[in-house]
Amino acid sequence: MDRSMLEAFGRRVRIGMVGGGADSVIGRTHLIAMRADGLCEVVAGAMSVDPTIAKASGRQELLAPDRIYTDWRDMLEKEAARPDRIDAVVVATPPRLHFPVAKAFLEKGFDVLSEKPLTHDLAEARSLADVVRSTGRIFCLAHCYTGYPMVRQARALVEAGSIGKVRLIDGEFSIGTAGVALEPDDPAKRHWRFRPDQEGKAGLLGEAGSHAYHMASYITGLHAVSVSALMATYAPRREVFDNAYITAKFDGGAHGRLWYSYVAAGNDHGLTIKIYGETGSLVWWQEEGEILWQKPMGKPAIRHARGYEGMASDVEAVTRIREGHPEGYLLAFANLYRLFAQAIMARHLGRPHLPFLASLPSVEDGVKGMAFIEAATLSNEQGGAWTKVSS
Amino acid sequence: MDRSMLEAFGRRVRIGMVGGGADSVIGRTHLIAMRADGLCEVVAGAMSVDPTIAKASGRQELLAPDRIYTDWRDMLEKEAARPDRIDAVVVATPPRLHFPVAKAFLEKGFDVLSEKPLTHDLAEARSLADVVRSTGRIFCLAHCYTGYPMVRQARALVEAGSIGKVRLIDGEFSIGTAGVALEPDDPAKRHWRFRPDQEGKAGLLGEAGSHAYHMASYITGLHAVSVSALMATYAPRREVFDNAYITAKFDGGAHGRLWYSYVAAGNDHGLTIKIYGETGSLVWWQEEGEILWQKPMGKPAIRHARGYEGMASDVEAVTRIREGHPEGYLLAFANLYRLFAQAIMARHLGRPHLPFLASLPSVEDGVKGMAFIEAATLSNEQGGAWTKVSS
Amino acid sequence: MDRSMLEAFGRRVRIGMVGGGADSVIGRTHLIAMRADGLCEVVAGAMSVDPTIAKASGRQELLAPDRIYTDWRDMLEKEAARPDRIDAVVVATPPRLHFPVAKAFLEKGFDVLSEKPLTHDLAEARSLADVVRSTGRIFCLAHCYTGYPMVRQARALVEAGSIGKVRLIDGEFSIGTAGVALEPDDPAKRHWRFRPDQEGKAGLLGEAGSHAYHMASYITGLHAVSVSALMATYAPRREVFDNAYITAKFDGGAHGRLWYSYVAAGNDHGLTIKIYGETGSLVWWQEEGEILWQKPMGKPAIRHARGYEGMASDVEAVTRIREGHPEGYLLAFANLYRLFAQAIMARHLGRPHLPFLASLPSVEDGVKGMAFIEAATLSNEQGGAWTKVSS
Amino acid sequence: MDRSMLEAFGRRVRIGMVGGGADSVIGRTHLIAMRADGLCEVVAGAMSVDPTIAKASGRQELLAPDRIYTDWRDMLEKEAARPDRIDAVVVATPPRLHFPVAKAFLEKGFDVLSEKPLTHDLAEARSLADVVRSTGRIFCLAHCYTGYPMVRQARALVEAGSIGKVRLIDGEFSIGTAGVALEPDDPAKRHWRFRPDQEGKAGLLGEAGSHAYHMASYITGLHAVSVSALMATYAPRREVFDNAYITAKFDGGAHGRLWYSYVAAGNDHGLTIKIYGETGSLVWWQEEGEILWQKPMGKPAIRHARGYEGMASDVEAVTRIREGHPEGYLLAFANLYRLFAQAIMARHLGRPHLPFLASLPSVEDGVKGMAFIEAATLSNEQGGAWTKVSS
Repeated sequence: MDRSMLEAFGRRVRIGMVGGGADSVIGRTHLIAMRADGLCEVVAGAMSVDPTIAKASGRQELLAPDRIYTDWRDMLEKEAARPDRIDAVVVATPPRLHFPVAKAFLEKGFDVLSEKPLTHDLAEARSLADVVRSTGRIFCLAHCYTGYPMVRQARALVEAGSIGKVRLIDGEFSIGTAGVALEPDDPAKRHWRFRPDQEGKAGLLGEAGSHAYHMASYITGLHAVSVSALMATYAPRREVFDNAYITAKFDGGAHGRLWYSYVAAGNDHGLTIKIYGETGSLVWWQEEGEILWQKPMGKPAIRHARGYEGMASDVEAVTRIREGHPEGYLLAFANLYRLFAQAIMARHLGRPHLPFLASLPSVEDGVKGMAFIEAATLSNEQGGAWTKVSS
Repeated sequence: MDRSMLEAFGRRVRIGMVGGGADSVIGRTHLIAMRADGLCEVVAGAMSVDPTIAKASGRQELLAPDRIYTDWRDMLEKEAARPDRIDAVVVATPPRLHFPVAKAFLEKGFDVLSEKPLTHDLAEARSLADVVRSTGRIFCLAHCYTGYPMVRQARALVEAGSIGKVRLIDGEFSIGTAGVALEPDDPAKRHWRFRPDQEGKAGLLGEAGSHAYHMASYITGLHAVSVSALMATYAPRREVFDNAYITAKFDGGAHGRLWYSYVAAGNDHGLTIKIYGETGSLVWWQEEGEILWQKPMGKPAIRHARGYEGMASDVEAVTRIREGHPEGYLLAFANLYRLFAQAIMARHLGRPHLPFLASLPSVEDGVKGMAFIEAATLSNEQGGAWTKVSS
Repeated sequence: MDRSMLEAFGRRVRIGMVGGGADSVIGRTHLIAMRADGLCEVVAGAMSVDPTIAKASGRQELLAPDRIYTDWRDMLEKEAARPDRIDAVVVATPPRLHFPVAKAFLEKGFDVLSEKPLTHDLAEARSLADVVRSTGRIFCLAHCYTGYPMVRQARALVEAGSIGKVRLIDGEFSIGTAGVALEPDDPAKRHWRFRPDQEGKAGLLGEAGSHAYHMASYITGLHAVSVSALMATYAPRREVFDNAYITAKFDGGAHGRLWYSYVAAGNDHGLTIKIYGETGSLVWWQEEGEILWQKPMGKPAIRHARGYEGMASDVEAVTRIREGHPEGYLLAFANLYRLFAQAIMARHLGRPHLPFLASLPSVEDGVKGMAFIEAATLSNEQGGAWTKVSS
Repeated sequence: MDRSMLEAFGRRVRIGMVGGGADSVIGRTHLIAMRADGLCEVVAGAMSVDPTIAKASGRQELLAPDRIYTDWRDMLEKEAARPDRIDAVVVATPPRLHFPVAKAFLEKGFDVLSEKPLTHDLAEARSLADVVRSTGRIFCLAHCYTGYPMVRQARALVEAGSIGKVRLIDGEFSIGTAGVALEPDDPAKRHWRFRPDQEGKAGLLGEAGSHAYHMASYITGLHAVSVSALMATYAPRREVFDNAYITAKFDGGAHGRLWYSYVAAGNDHGLTIKIYGETGSLVWWQEEGEILWQKPMGKPAIRHARGYEGMASDVEAVTRIREGHPEGYLLAFANLYRLFAQAIMARHLGRPHLPFLASLPSVEDGVKGMAFIEAATLSNEQGGAWTKVSS
């Protein structure tokens, strides 16, 4: 990575965090991802709704005492007033808060990187897209798996026609680790993800599902036009769906399937995408995410990996080290932060910043994801009836 | 394999073939499979409806000239009259003929090994099951992939409770080789498999689909109670469906998906089964069919293979050589012939023969397969409506 | 496979077996391999030195009573006198007998397919090569793994310059199954393979080693010119070496390593070949033997498999079924029998028979193998001193 | 990771870098690795012998202008005099400088993390070990691959007796990427790694080799007692060895092989370790480094991965995220920095710091590595003669 822009910028991008405190898996992930390239630093945070956790989390990130907040509204106001105010906020709260937090920070002129799902529902999602457009701020949705170089290579190969017109799209996010597949006896120990009051009975679609659907669209450029869904609950004591099978008709006649699960016992994370075109296919599995399989019909399969000839420019831009050295998930996530930070620095410096955003998941992607979730939920309620996805 | 029964029998089991001549891929496969263990020999054949091919095929198998037939009815009559008559007939014709041929031979007292799908439709299938019952003959349906030792190990592991109660069943038979994914310009060059007049528009379900569905049931012991199907035709000039997505509800609350395709471009044969239970999962892929993956939730995955400790007795019975030496598809197929021949010899010798049949696909399995096909076809015609599978 | 030559020949090739009886793993393997294509049939046998086993084995193969022999000399004489005499003999005895049996049958005008190692020592090997030359009989050495289509594809790729000039050769045959890695308490239960009186302390080199070395030469066309060896015995109670590391200098400046082991605990069969050239490499592992990896430097790896475009003609000739259906070890072995039988039939019919032999392991290959063994054994005795391999 | 010690320490560990500037692959790697966990920050650097690069590199890391040095001696002196002086120095220079730089900084009371090989030769290595002992400073040798959780799991499994007594050790570091396997026409463009004046003709052993040998010892606890080596040069225009085969006798009777190469064309990085014991084996391949294969003799193979039950405590301490999310090479490297920084902070805080160092490669490991290199080089010079490794 060319670090001359950082030199010109003269400092790291200042990040404030809402949520993502010491008790948050995803918070830890964001922190590693944003530190890796040395382009960002957390300088402020309201890292938990629980003030004790919020304070401890801030101290453990070595934040200045006056920038450790216990309420995000307070942080918004005070940071807005500082000369050394944060450049951007990371929204790593439960989904209910994504919309109000993102909206408020955008409207005060901060850039935003938010966890998925974009918002609580489609109406909020559309409203947030309006806010992004009207404020002109930079917004990135944390579909972190798109940071993998080989996902970008897949997208480039589809675009280049390497597998011909896309016909079949198969995506899954089928988790089966003990921590997710089993529901603890004590309801108090349940993660908000498994509480119907948080994201509804079909929260699975926002949590795991939104990644797989987004990735299918990211790689193929196609979106679902209608869906038929079958959901079920398998884990004893669970109050939300923990398995969803969705059949989908996509733009231009492609058919596809999405499978989301918390009870694929024995699976680890289960994120896989298979795209079949007229002349070949592409297969990518997050757990061996350094590799992209291309299978031309009637010919030997090709094993793409970072570092070889023929990588898309998109891939070069997110490559740190040479072939044979897996960069893994956290640095794939770091690629989102790298491009997000580069966009922020470029705009500050009066340089073109849109190229850095071109491959990042946008608020519009989030709107499409929420429309898919809404249609699938409705289809399931109606016994699997084919249901139109709003555009 | 203990060869003392062969010694006692004093000769090989005499096989007659209907169909499966020199122009038939599956015929070649049957011939290798039946020869491998030296328990069977082809001594008669009406190996094609085309008399020239029928004659050439018989000569190339070194059949005696008077046992090379050009009409299966002629063969039936003449073989029935010979003192050295065939013991069994192999039905390797297009599906239209499975029923009349099998029925006629059964009724004349011959044992039968038939290609799938069992018959043309469910009514015929039920009728054939009646014939098998009333004649008391030995009948085996050539769901050849069940001959793989690791498929049998999977069945034994499910039965032993190794993955707990089954919740999710995922089967696919998704072919994408050039020979199947493309439709030749000249309609005369099309395989009967791709002609709607042979097995209807949904012939895919009988050809590829019946294997995957049978295998799902074979391993889990569960059957579909209702299905929702989405079929489509992608290859230009094709007149039948070449892709089918089926969502299914199984006995006892399990959900599942079946995917059948001729246009999974870049796939080879694409037969894969994944079974998820309460505490773990099993994954088997025919193209690395010597291996069975067991994934206990929260623990390291286990790679089962023929020859290790802990194999089911079912597996021992179909093992030829030691670990580390793949036996492959043709010898998996040969396992059906081995057990079929052992059953025939045992009955002739007055020994218990049913144990040899216990793990072979039966006529009842074929009936269940036809019921599934009929329900899926109906569901697709009705826009994916959930449709009951007859029991 | 074109079966018209079989039709012209009018019968199967008649095989007599020496050794390979009911108690022999390799015997069972030969019998399956020779039956698979229906080109050969065993009609005579002296299948064990133990008369009881010899008789039982013959009966279990349904041999005519007068062709079940208890002494191979007797079989030689009587078969030589029959009008329907065997065409060829298979030598599946312990190594001590390879030379006398092969020599005697060759001299009486029989063709021979013999187990490896070719003979007991290099002097015998050279003498046998003379016999083959002087009698003009067909001789095939059972380096069965060369029957794998992908081994042949590897050879064709090297010959075509796909990896440039060969620089490094890495072969291993490292077994670690319980049956081989452990020595039974009771010396009487030890396989002859583990008795020093059979093949000397370094019998490992003839048993496992000869395959790996032959395969290295088969694929690259290169032979070792000098070697340095380190051998050891690890299993308690064992009297022969059970591990050998050999470093080798090959023709033309290539370097290489060979590893042979009976104590690679946890390995199954361990036969692997890796060839590195100037511009890329090839990797083949018997246990996933349907696949050949080609790795061009700086480019994505290519996964070759039977059935795709670009297979060598050599590969087409030993292909039975379409892609996606593993043929495995036993049918790789059957490829040797197929070509051996085709050569025999062709010569009987006055057609060119040498093309069928071109890719089969020859007596000359066996001589080279024995020279390698002799040099390695000597090097080990001399503390690893670099030792010339006789040419 | 518990971050309370960071909170107590109240700041990040201050790092100074010698070498590792903008033109250095390994420098970039160190910077990512040290940033990931937020425990360290670079605050000073003499990052190149070329002053222009040194300055640009410092600016690009946002160093204060007065802490960007062009000479490491200058940095040593000035940093030693500052109240906010660096805590530790990272030595990422070519090997010639490892010794003088490390020695000088240690003697001024700085802790040191140094690139491998430890020093230029064994004498220097021993001398450096003395300095570490006499100064009592913290020293870590950057055998970065030992940071992989599964390497630590392998070590724990061997120690727990999971594969019985170790018999065979097989390590390789066989690179074949275009950047390393080919020598540029222009000698000026050659990396110092390929210049004989830097590390001698056998520099390969220090660069690639030292990792593989250290890892073999790290996992097994065993060291080579004597070696026999064969080295060669294959790439045109190359002046140093680019391939080395080493056979080794280890403590306690184990035998082993090491293979180091720059011309394993088509390989990526090629670091692999296989350990065979009495009852099973362990296999680890850096390029799929999240996985550790355990193969118990006669039983199914076990696929260990981070996050499952049964991980050693050593593994827990270097785990960031849940199963199914590869952490990859850079975060494996970061594990060394994590433990190094924790040791420094702990000692400052008066807490036990040795536990953090227990699993880090030490100066003694470096001495053993240099002894191995010296013996192998000597053996090669003497035509492969078995040569004692100094202890």
